[in-house]
Amino acid sequence: MKHTLSALVRNEPGVLAHMARHFGEAKLNINSIACGETENPDISRMVIRIEANPERISRITERMQALDVVIQVDDLSRKEFVDRELALIKVALTPEDTAQIMQIFEVFRADVVGMGQRSVTVELTGDEARVDGLIKMLKPYGILSMCRTGTIALKRGDE
Amino acid sequence: MKHTLSALVRNEPGVLAHMARHFGEAKLNINSIACGETENPDISRMVIRIEANPERISRITERMQALDVVIQVDDLSRKEFVDRELALIKVALTPEDTAQIMQIFEVFRADVVGMGQRSVTVELTGDEARVDGLIKMLKPYGILSMCRTGTIALKRGDE
Repeated sequence: MKHTLSALVRNEPGVLAHMARHFGEAKLNINSIACGETENPDISRMVIRIEANPERISRITERMQALDVVIQVDDLSRKEFVDRELALIKVALTPEDTAQIMQIFEVFRADVVGMGQRSVTVELTGDEARVDGLIKMLKPYGILSMCRTGTIALKRGDE
Repeated sequence: MKHTLSALVRNEPGVLAHMARHFGEAKLNINSIACGETENPDISRMVIRIEANPERISRITERMQALDVVIQVDDLSRKEFVDRELALIKVALTPEDTAQIMQIFEVFRADVVGMGQRSVTVELTGDEARVDGLIKMLKPYGILSMCRTGTIALKRGDE
């Protein structure tokens, strides 16, 4: 099962290495990671998507929590949360496919952000399933390059 | 100056630790990192935003390029590229501020993705300056929590 861990960490050089080493040593493969600033410039939020059984997840969560650089870790898989990711996808464009591709973009409400002579680049925001869905639809036309942010998430409600 | 490095890396356990160690050893602080799957499941794309002078950037780029797990590194600061990031922001909501906050969301075309009794959560996609802009506007009302993906980027044109 895929888990989403959200950690508040100190914004210092070496923090990512520290965290990543623990994941590497535990032989856990990270599906995606997104790490950016929070409302406080001294603190970053790291959201990690990882596939493992619950015991391994609680073991790694405990290890993370024990690190000096880690302020808080939440396993968001257990809580209600809003999750989103962003993808940029460059897909091959031929005159005969244009109408169909544009229709797919419309269905997914994907925004065109760039146009080349033989390609079009779109951005899509949504949960993982939605992004996977668009990629699946575009694959037959030829995906030239692609970039996904990985999931970020916030708890639902006022907390 | 801020640089955006985009690396294609093998999707294996320990790769992130490997990369992060090099940044930590070079005492470079990462502003943001986003790592997710690409069109090829064996390969991930890592986009790293980092502030450093050009010599340090070319040194770290060379070191990354020399790693077995790294397939390709581009310094996107030197090239034309589309860059985007995604933010989820939960802001405090009181009846007297509601109209103003909703107007700010409209100006930035930020989408409401969750509502609590005392808060509202929005998502915004845009370049770094746009996300910074919205955060600045919302700060006076009280940002309760926030999560940014970090920048992802694709080259402009057909390449």
